[in-house]
Amino acid sequence: MTVPVQLLGISNAIVDVLAHVDEAFLEKIGVPRGSMTLIDEARAHEIYDMMGPATEMSGGSVANSVAGFAILGGSASYIGRVKDDQLGEIFVHDMRSLGVDIRTSPATDGAATARSHILIDPDGQRTMNTYLGACTELGVADVTEQSVGKPRVILLEGYLWDIPEGPALAAEAIRIGKANGSATALSLSDSYCVDRHRDAFAKVVQEDVDMIFADDEEVMALYEVQDFEGVLSAINGTNSLFAMTRSEKGSVIVQGDIKILQEATPIKQLIDTTGAGDAYAAAFLFGWASGKELEECARLGTHVATSVIQQMGARIDTNVLESYE
Amino acid sequence: MTVPVQLLGISNAIVDVLAHVDEAFLEKIGVPRGSMTLIDEARAHEIYDMMGPATEMSGGSVANSVAGFAILGGSASYIGRVKDDQLGEIFVHDMRSLGVDIRTSPATDGAATARSHILIDPDGQRTMNTYLGACTELGVADVTEQSVGKPRVILLEGYLWDIPEGPALAAEAIRIGKANGSATALSLSDSYCVDRHRDAFAKVVQEDVDMIFADDEEVMALYEVQDFEGVLSAINGTNSLFAMTRSEKGSVIVQGDIKILQEATPIKQLIDTTGAGDAYAAAFLFGWASGKELEECARLGTHVATSVIQQMGARIDTNVLESYE
Repeated sequence: MTVPVQLLGISNAIVDVLAHVDEAFLEKIGVPRGSMTLIDEARAHEIYDMMGPATEMSGGSVANSVAGFAILGGSASYIGRVKDDQLGEIFVHDMRSLGVDIRTSPATDGAATARSHILIDPDGQRTMNTYLGACTELGVADVTEQSVGKPRVILLEGYLWDIPEGPALAAEAIRIGKANGSATALSLSDSYCVDRHRDAFAKVVQEDVDMIFADDEEVMALYEVQDFEGVLSAINGTNSLFAMTRSEKGSVIVQGDIKILQEATPIKQLIDTTGAGDAYAAAFLFGWASGKELEECARLGTHVATSVIQQMGARIDTNVLESYE
Repeated sequence: MTVPVQLLGISNAIVDVLAHVDEAFLEKIGVPRGSMTLIDEARAHEIYDMMGPATEMSGGSVANSVAGFAILGGSASYIGRVKDDQLGEIFVHDMRSLGVDIRTSPATDGAATARSHILIDPDGQRTMNTYLGACTELGVADVTEQSVGKPRVILLEGYLWDIPEGPALAAEAIRIGKANGSATALSLSDSYCVDRHRDAFAKVVQEDVDMIFADDEEVMALYEVQDFEGVLSAINGTNSLFAMTRSEKGSVIVQGDIKILQEATPIKQLIDTTGAGDAYAAAFLFGWASGKELEECARLGTHVATSVIQQMGARIDTNVLESYE
């Protein structure tokens, strides 16, 4: 008997190139601290040439969540495009080695596998410069009844709206999900991404998906409000499940009349915030797909996110549950 | 005024693929714990397929020492062969970003850039499976008066004897070094490598190079003795400088009648022993090239090696000297 797929992620498939920098470096390249900037190949080379020695790891926001879900013990599949180059091989290997079923074959032509130059400053904040490469060629044709299957949850990311066929393939995934009884979820990616696609996201959040994963800045950007109270007012009366992370303020889950406040866990040392939200979503969805109460999903999300910010890189440690009580 | 090159390294240029494993994994693939096994491309794919998610970083024994020497503030150059593929680009970037002058252009044909699958077990011990790829095509033609220049020290590694033209190009480097007044040094790489090339190494150590870097197992293998006292007897009367690391027993420097014992520094947590010896050699040579007394070279080597074993990966941290007193 095969285990039914619980989570399907559809997202930009990216290899992270991580390096430590000081704040002067961020000023030199002229990007806002904590942002994700889309860059072309020439700019990618320019920034890479300026960076110090780096470490390469598979990344990508929802791809991180899918990997984390598999590490926690869930059955997962993935749709995302890499090229059949060495970085693509790394991305596919890291997913497959966790048991993730990759539904998209590496491309034999087109742009190179995407990479995100992640600059980590002394406070652990990460600033990303992403060359989307092969991701930009992911298309509606990659999202079919067959490739999507009938997972418990389909998780999309806001960054999909940055690629040409992203909105259309997201719509197709949602359509297939609704037809087959899959829950649909959207991670809002980052507040700059929300600024780029606010109207589209507002519609998808309001009308299409069942769950939204976001941090407080992202939901504030979505509803164009100045504080978190404004967010709570804005989502009042909607039926979707909102799982919102707030760094040291913990996380807040809202679904209809239900409102859960989950406190943050004290940390020993902040190393790198990369992937905190992705890890939270992975663990929350793992709890949810396992039939746990929302309180327990939030507690699990917090545990795993707390772990990932105390290590270098965005993918969660394979033994993250050993310290979970 | 340009700073004269102080260190030239010649070695196998390798990208490390690091993953955590348990001891059962090592039994399954059938390699001795702590060893470096040379593998072909098919076996590299086989082992990689069995490995969990990995992290990629530039590596290579003497390449690590060269990078470390540059991080410490020294002027360094490097001869080693990568292909012009994505892993080759990573290797070259990480060296150049430290100011290392790479004297070998990436190859436009031939085998792919080398990679070493480094399996780290729960005790921090690393077991390496290395596919040499492009390294095997490094040749005598790459070692010329022009590419070598007139560095203060030329550092070779035992692993060069694993590639077809390695012994010949090492001999040529030593010849050029002697003609131009460069000191010559050999790192013995690992005890299995010493077993493979014992007679050749014995001759080079006895007759050709001025400095030898090794751990206790390597020198014991070289002289086929069962304990470190046997090593001290064997090298008694030679003129070369031996810098020998002994893990928690510290390090021992012997040069003629001089014998220095440097104690190990207590550590908080052993993460990964990869690169400890390379880091020691980097710092020792940096001290030596800066005109420091041998005691100070050993103390600096210990500090930097102690740092590298408390982090993941073999390349030393760029601010390693901040905690040096």
